[in-house]
Amino acid sequence: MQSYALTIDKFLEHAAKWSPHREIVTGNSGRVGYDRLRQRSNRLSGALKRLGLARGDRVATLAWNTQHHVEVYYGTMAAGFVCHTLNPRLTVAHLAAMANEAEDRVLAVGEGLGETALELVRLCPAIKNVIFLDSPDAAPQSVAHCRAFGFESLLADLGCETPWGDFDEEAPAGLCYTSGTTGAPKGVLYTHRSNYLHTLLSLQADAFAMTRRDSILVGVPLFHANGWGLPFAAPAVGAKLVLPGRHTDGAWLASLIRAEEVTIACGVQTVWQRLADHLEAEDGDVPTLERIIIGGSNCPDSLMRRLEDRLQARVQTTWGMTELSPVGTVAPPRGNSRSVASGRPPIGVDLKLTDASGQTLREQRNTVGHLKVKGASVIDRYFRAPVDSLDSEGYFDTGDLARIDDEGNLTITGRAKDLIKSGGEWINPSEIETVIGRLPGVVQVAVIGRSDEAWGERPILIVEPQRGCVLDDARLLDSLRGTVADWWIPDQVFQVADMPLAATGKIDKARLRAEYAGV
Amino acid sequence: MQSYALTIDKFLEHAAKWSPHREIVTGNSGRVGYDRLRQRSNRLSGALKRLGLARGDRVATLAWNTQHHVEVYYGTMAAGFVCHTLNPRLTVAHLAAMANEAEDRVLAVGEGLGETALELVRLCPAIKNVIFLDSPDAAPQSVAHCRAFGFESLLADLGCETPWGDFDEEAPAGLCYTSGTTGAPKGVLYTHRSNYLHTLLSLQADAFAMTRRDSILVGVPLFHANGWGLPFAAPAVGAKLVLPGRHTDGAWLASLIRAEEVTIACGVQTVWQRLADHLEAEDGDVPTLERIIIGGSNCPDSLMRRLEDRLQARVQTTWGMTELSPVGTVAPPRGNSRSVASGRPPIGVDLKLTDASGQTLREQRNTVGHLKVKGASVIDRYFRAPVDSLDSEGYFDTGDLARIDDEGNLTITGRAKDLIKSGGEWINPSEIETVIGRLPGVVQVAVIGRSDEAWGERPILIVEPQRGCVLDDARLLDSLRGTVADWWIPDQVFQVADMPLAATGKIDKARLRAEYAGV
Repeated sequence: MQSYALTIDKFLEHAAKWSPHREIVTGNSGRVGYDRLRQRSNRLSGALKRLGLARGDRVATLAWNTQHHVEVYYGTMAAGFVCHTLNPRLTVAHLAAMANEAEDRVLAVGEGLGETALELVRLCPAIKNVIFLDSPDAAPQSVAHCRAFGFESLLADLGCETPWGDFDEEAPAGLCYTSGTTGAPKGVLYTHRSNYLHTLLSLQADAFAMTRRDSILVGVPLFHANGWGLPFAAPAVGAKLVLPGRHTDGAWLASLIRAEEVTIACGVQTVWQRLADHLEAEDGDVPTLERIIIGGSNCPDSLMRRLEDRLQARVQTTWGMTELSPVGTVAPPRGNSRSVASGRPPIGVDLKLTDASGQTLREQRNTVGHLKVKGASVIDRYFRAPVDSLDSEGYFDTGDLARIDDEGNLTITGRAKDLIKSGGEWINPSEIETVIGRLPGVVQVAVIGRSDEAWGERPILIVEPQRGCVLDDARLLDSLRGTVADWWIPDQVFQVADMPLAATGKIDKARLRAEYAGV
Repeated sequence: MQSYALTIDKFLEHAAKWSPHREIVTGNSGRVGYDRLRQRSNRLSGALKRLGLARGDRVATLAWNTQHHVEVYYGTMAAGFVCHTLNPRLTVAHLAAMANEAEDRVLAVGEGLGETALELVRLCPAIKNVIFLDSPDAAPQSVAHCRAFGFESLLADLGCETPWGDFDEEAPAGLCYTSGTTGAPKGVLYTHRSNYLHTLLSLQADAFAMTRRDSILVGVPLFHANGWGLPFAAPAVGAKLVLPGRHTDGAWLASLIRAEEVTIACGVQTVWQRLADHLEAEDGDVPTLERIIIGGSNCPDSLMRRLEDRLQARVQTTWGMTELSPVGTVAPPRGNSRSVASGRPPIGVDLKLTDASGQTLREQRNTVGHLKVKGASVIDRYFRAPVDSLDSEGYFDTGDLARIDDEGNLTITGRAKDLIKSGGEWINPSEIETVIGRLPGVVQVAVIGRSDEAWGERPILIVEPQRGCVLDDARLLDSLRGTVADWWIPDQVFQVADMPLAATGKIDKARLRAEYAGV
């Protein structure tokens, strides 16, 4: 059969040929068809070559969900460069560490991020060019030691047609750092093949099931977990791509959904909660919306019910990771959404549960184990890591604990590294957090281990009460009785005004351990 | 990212793990879950090894759509052998030519095909083992020079667990000969990669869109055009697979659809016509059926309307070829089925139209051109061909003429080799055949070229009237006036009692040319 490299330029080429006028919309600031998007991205590739970039060179983006950002995706990857998406919500020191490890040579900067960019390039000697995206084209001529360009002037002045593809499908395409809540961030280097195959696996009819008639709202940042692969999936099927720009508040998303007749909205649950809040307040609706694809964490039934009732749309829960490109499991677009947890793995994702030593559990159903994954869109090693981190069967350790039900539906039950070993037995903080988190007046909750002479470790409970609420420590602990084993009940309670959060919005347990586990 | 070979064993492994009890049903003669199917197919691999087969060795099947046939699919391919599906409707001489070219070493024979098999192996010295499928296990001990086994005894006596996969994804998996109506049949050697990627492309939500809740009736023979990839697609999504065995008459299919709650039925249009006839006669219905996927040839609007009305199911038209694994274009599962011709190419299939010299047409829409295809599941060369048959851009010439509309929908307008060159200009027989074929009393129609001193070639018309009908030659030709150019109107009409058909049921134009073009 034909030798046909699985490279991501094919997605945009296909869209340009078969859905030339299907649009990519950026908030209310612009729209373009796939034919034009292809042409512009291709001219960008030519401009980047003229800036001296060679195959495999990395271009960093510090940007929001806009057309220009998608053009940088294709302008880099389709020509064999690597698109390194940076998260603007991280500190400049963090960003610099990543950009320097990646040896980024160009930085593309979104609206309102000029100051951060200036600080960043000062710390990154390898960055020689800065491209200003989004805003009307009035870029400075230089930024620190870098040449600077407005995106449109760069296209006009240096842009030229240039061949795409024609390299090995194993060539690198994208780089995305995991925003671990503990430890140093680690880079995941996606290849063309991994992105191509991830797109096909995510598009299956029991997974994202996107079609040409869909209008897809990208409510997840493009810099988060490979943008969930949406900038690949939408052109692959010829769907409309709706990019909200910088803002994701409820009123803005509601107006976008209505204006662009969005059928599928993708993002973490807090975004859709805000949308539901807004619709409730204004007694509004979003009649075209058919589905919401949720990622990030287990979605409580009550929230799911609220979203489905309020938005009149099907909620599809998922489980994924940056290391998985990111899809691991997906709830199907039909049937009862509230019985399927995070859904099942589509073909292309192999899962297994092991014990702490890595032995495959004899019983893979209805028992908690360490979750391992295998597949063409799953990492083998972190960026710059000298050796792979797979087990003898080639599986990657997610670090998650999970349970799989009789129907194959996955529930994440905690993080392996958060487990607390007390008297030689394991306590899963996540189960305690779930109970406490449901109590009225509790905004955030975390359980961590504190070293203990008698038991090795003992759990302690940290809660952030709702403003104006008074929580009683003893009552909090009482609520656990009968639900978890008595010896799981935390030894001490700390109430805090503000739970420390990492850049992703997840609770920063490393900081909690530093502050409270020594107490 | 991980090195993860795209091999077809993964489909059945996935199904066995995630849909172990979803069934493969053979008519009313048996059913098995994917876990058992996996186990049995794997034991067959072990038995084939013990018969002396090595990687790449070919196993022929001469068999109907049954569980045993699917087990031979996986028992061969998943262990690195090649499954060569033979069409029992061909002559023994034809079959022997293919089996000898392929150097088949084992022959698996379906119910009622013992006599053909005996004749065949006498002509095929390389075949050393014959396996009798389907029937109660009373096989002879030998057939001509071959050892013979009943399938179940083979599994019981020689079957053993054996490792699957673990070879290159470019390894050959299946062999299927095109049943050309002219010229010698040509083999298409599918690889694991081509089958894996074809499965993902065909499963897209705008294409076959199969899900775990579907029950799929395989109304197309497994030996026809790679079985449309259905033995891969069904386990990949965990769908039920319904195999009708040898018979595909309307009453039988209706009862199967009802008993197995079939949601998607796949096959050529004549099969579904017979189903509609039967339902009309018995005033029956098939309430679970949601979709019919049709291949083979352009489906007239009137038939489509009749099928949709009678079966209360959506008709999805397709265009494909053995050389394409076979999907080329598919009409979507939603929207108006009657405006989309054979549908659009899913991602993974690239199409272009050229002129007769191979130059890409400047205008790719609303004009007829020679259809060329590129993709990972498209042939590069026929089996045993020393060089590939691709153009400089890597496209395969389908031999078809086609038009693509503004929406990207494809219509096949004829075969390039059937074109008639008259006075230096082209006449497309297919357009004439379509007009004549719609006339009352016409059962079959063919237009071929006859050499002509003045014009080079001139068209002649051959029709088979309905039994008892009298057709008037002049009236037949008159019906063309105003619809095709006057100089396209055939010079002569021949009425025949029986149109000669090739083994596929298509009109045998080679024989017509031999008989009539010299007249």
